[in-house]
Amino acid sequence: MPAFDHRKYRPAPRVPAFNRQWPDRDLDHAPIWVSEDLRDGNQALLEPMTVEQKKRFWHQIVKVGIKEVMVGFPSASQPDYDFVRWLIEADQIPDDVTIAVLVQCREHLIEKTFASLVGAKRAIVHLYNSTSTVQRERVFAMDRGGIVDIAVQGATWVKTHADRYPDIDWCFEYTPESFSSTEIDFSLEICEAVLDVWQPTSDNKCILNLPTTVEVAGPHHHADQIEYFCQHISRRDSVIISVHTHNDRGGAVASAELALLAGAERVEGTLLGNGERTGNMDIVTLAMNLYSQGIDPQLDLSNPDEIIQVVNECTGIAMHPRHPWVGEMVYTAFSGSHQDAIRKSLKHQQPDEPWQVAYLPIDPHDIGRDYQAVIRVNSQSGKGGMAFLLERDYGINLPRWMMLALAPYVQQESEQRASELSSAMIRQVMFDNFTLEIPLSLVEYRLSKGRQEGIEVTLQQGDEMLQLSGKGNGAMSAFTDAWQRHSGSNVGIIDYSEHSLGASSEANAIAFVQLNIDGQRLCAVAEDSDTVSASLKALLSGINLAAKTTAATSLQQQAHALS
Amino acid sequence: MPAFDHRKYRPAPRVPAFNRQWPDRDLDHAPIWVSEDLRDGNQALLEPMTVEQKKRFWHQIVKVGIKEVMVGFPSASQPDYDFVRWLIEADQIPDDVTIAVLVQCREHLIEKTFASLVGAKRAIVHLYNSTSTVQRERVFAMDRGGIVDIAVQGATWVKTHADRYPDIDWCFEYTPESFSSTEIDFSLEICEAVLDVWQPTSDNKCILNLPTTVEVAGPHHHADQIEYFCQHISRRDSVIISVHTHNDRGGAVASAELALLAGAERVEGTLLGNGERTGNMDIVTLAMNLYSQGIDPQLDLSNPDEIIQVVNECTGIAMHPRHPWVGEMVYTAFSGSHQDAIRKSLKHQQPDEPWQVAYLPIDPHDIGRDYQAVIRVNSQSGKGGMAFLLERDYGINLPRWMMLALAPYVQQESEQRASELSSAMIRQVMFDNFTLEIPLSLVEYRLSKGRQEGIEVTLQQGDEMLQLSGKGNGAMSAFTDAWQRHSGSNVGIIDYSEHSLGASSEANAIAFVQLNIDGQRLCAVAEDSDTVSASLKALLSGINLAAKTTAATSLQQQAHALS
Repeated sequence: MPAFDHRKYRPAPRVPAFNRQWPDRDLDHAPIWVSEDLRDGNQALLEPMTVEQKKRFWHQIVKVGIKEVMVGFPSASQPDYDFVRWLIEADQIPDDVTIAVLVQCREHLIEKTFASLVGAKRAIVHLYNSTSTVQRERVFAMDRGGIVDIAVQGATWVKTHADRYPDIDWCFEYTPESFSSTEIDFSLEICEAVLDVWQPTSDNKCILNLPTTVEVAGPHHHADQIEYFCQHISRRDSVIISVHTHNDRGGAVASAELALLAGAERVEGTLLGNGERTGNMDIVTLAMNLYSQGIDPQLDLSNPDEIIQVVNECTGIAMHPRHPWVGEMVYTAFSGSHQDAIRKSLKHQQPDEPWQVAYLPIDPHDIGRDYQAVIRVNSQSGKGGMAFLLERDYGINLPRWMMLALAPYVQQESEQRASELSSAMIRQVMFDNFTLEIPLSLVEYRLSKGRQEGIEVTLQQGDEMLQLSGKGNGAMSAFTDAWQRHSGSNVGIIDYSEHSLGASSEANAIAFVQLNIDGQRLCAVAEDSDTVSASLKALLSGINLAAKTTAATSLQQQAHALS
Repeated sequence: MPAFDHRKYRPAPRVPAFNRQWPDRDLDHAPIWVSEDLRDGNQALLEPMTVEQKKRFWHQIVKVGIKEVMVGFPSASQPDYDFVRWLIEADQIPDDVTIAVLVQCREHLIEKTFASLVGAKRAIVHLYNSTSTVQRERVFAMDRGGIVDIAVQGATWVKTHADRYPDIDWCFEYTPESFSSTEIDFSLEICEAVLDVWQPTSDNKCILNLPTTVEVAGPHHHADQIEYFCQHISRRDSVIISVHTHNDRGGAVASAELALLAGAERVEGTLLGNGERTGNMDIVTLAMNLYSQGIDPQLDLSNPDEIIQVVNECTGIAMHPRHPWVGEMVYTAFSGSHQDAIRKSLKHQQPDEPWQVAYLPIDPHDIGRDYQAVIRVNSQSGKGGMAFLLERDYGINLPRWMMLALAPYVQQESEQRASELSSAMIRQVMFDNFTLEIPLSLVEYRLSKGRQEGIEVTLQQGDEMLQLSGKGNGAMSAFTDAWQRHSGSNVGIIDYSEHSLGASSEANAIAFVQLNIDGQRLCAVAEDSDTVSASLKALLSGINLAAKTTAATSLQQQAHALS
């Protein structure tokens, strides 16, 4: 066969027709979370964790609030054995946390496993053997009966050895390993045989863990398998159904989530998804999925950055910047329409009402993130972003007409730089293009109010000083009157906006004007510690800009035409 | 409210009860793939792609075999406009590839969009406006009618401007943006209104694209939305239903896959999942999901490393090592039982039968990967891995008893190093512990066959030479006879295995022996260019090891007790 040829593969078989209920159900509570970080996760590392890293990871797992923690394979690995002993002897296990250990169906391994747990208050002994067709036929060369015998023998040894330690509150867990590739009737058969040995009750349940050891089909197949299993297992009220999903097809979280609808009550996974091959299901993602639907995840994920740091330092694997919920890029919007929608939604959002913000499925503050990262301005992002940045970083509230006038300059700058623009760059673009202090600049003014309303103003033009005076019931109208008397040109103020920058009395003011000078519409801006100076300087900038026939001006005109 | 508090969120509403069919369906063909790399992907980068990067990415998209390519927002971005013009004017678009461009419902933007496409043979003009509740109420402050009017006006402008370019084969696409958060009846209403304008037919279909602009619910909700929509839209045979999923809840691929079951025919995504926030659906993953089920993905993904390189260099974002199908760690098994199962499955796998290998959902060779990376040996991985490595890298076939004897030394070494072991290290561990040339070493021998069967052998012991002779019908039995006569100790050969290392006549031989020396069981190994020397040296190693009471010996005994 040619190398890349789909014909060598077959779809995974489905369960028989049954009374499917899960697509109509909704989740309303969190599952029992189980951390596999120190076992499945650690096992899949090029450099397994050191003892110190394991301890650090353990503390993080407990801190997050996970109550069942798989801590390793003490019968197969001396470091795992020593770690279990440390947990018990150094009294590291909180009363509400239970450790779990994994073991194969071999007596000397089971014996050593129980020995490793002496002194624990409660522990889960997790037994498994492989059940899939390919494992039976090609790895073990056994028929179904032989595979069931292995499980039954293992379960018997587990029960026998547990009886030797009556002071420990034992919980038994059995996994038909490679459940996802096992015929559903055989999964049921072997689990029934194990339950026959363990004889669980509703007061003393055991755990049946049904893994997608390899994810070979969509999450709906997995949900079907789980629900079919739940409907057909004989002691449903005496077992806790657990799932353990891998991400081979990118569906580990979805498979676990749909499995919860299908009847699973317990989920094995890891923080941020480390684990064999493509990794285990990510507990952080699934928990945040529940959280964002208003379901208490029963975990404290308010500080994901701490989790990220621990995982990174202990596994040596960096998180992807687009990791769901906690990746560094996921609360960043680049698109202009997204930015605009976020800005408007945030303005509407009231503290006590349900969260409703476009493009932000949760409030990033919940997990210690910030809107500061939400909005960046590049050549794709349009007006909303730059307005947001100027307001956030400089307290500048752009009037809408100013925003429209500024936008093409910002976009041009962004395209030329081929990168995002900081708020400082945007502010600079604004002053570069809408403030012009030559040829005319303001030197001083005297504004009179009352009987003789008007202004006397001194302007500098090159080396020359101009003394102008005009009348009007405010600084701007008096100034335009003065300028018109002097120059003969016609200056109309179409719009005007001014505000202080910051709360203190020393704060600068910023003034925006939209002018019509002899039929030419243009905007200008100026900043000054004195509000009147700011507005007069803005007017003068407009007059200077109008006098200058530049590409900038024509870009302004284009912007007006488009708006 | 406290910061981390689930009570501020509400679950996404579901579609009304309907005749759900998708959970019973199976996929049997690939969808129409649409690359959003140059639009949604590029838009979400801190540093948008340069022109050269866009060109490189374009070539990769075409090379993979994607037939519809969204190339940007030409009315909103000069670089996008220029790129569209380059594609057309430099004749870069193969006849079977169609470019798509995005535009809002504004006439001057639509006009510029059509202008950008002059000279194309065929093009998709993709119109959108926002339809969700929060967008209507909080961003646009409009009722449903107002939002419909925007879409209808946009659709009308699109139709009108398209009519001005009769030489181009136009295809229209409409997106009710934020479909995933839009009431399903309103999505239908607004799409019907757009279809009323465009009047598509079964010969001249238009595309309705239904995005999870933000993924706010599980993939089964999305599938319900898609199927409900497909069942209720009036001109089903005149529209192509497209999906565009984001990964906010980690379910972008699952949502797209279930949507295909629900009736979608077209999937917008990116190569490896770049895109706004958590990214777009990853086309590589979904295509490989189909491939691994025996469905022709209609894409050539035989060289993912090239895709990875282009994506990395153009986006600046590195792929995660556990990325489904193509991450660098996904064909690596660390667990001993996994390694053993893979080794046995591979031995059974015939070239012409369907692929059935435990823990390897596909043959990594299909995508240019190799089993060389599959097996590594660390403290968790047990016997199968080391046997595989020794066979692969040195041609050494460990007999099972030798594997059992060696395993604890390898594990100890791995635990001490706290890292994986190379095949060279494993080989060294074997010779360090199972070959011992002091006090006795082989100097020469004379082996007689025929009437006088036996051996005369010279050994060195310190400065002393020992001359021994013994009888037997083979080198080993004669040698043990000679040694027993000389030393008085009892040497039994329990098992023996020897093979050449490589095919040439100069190849070395390696010999393994399992001995019982005065009741002490132990294994030994030796290598020599002469097969007889190899076996005699192995025997001598065993004798030397037996004479040495060491920790190594007791570890051997432990291993035997466990096996």
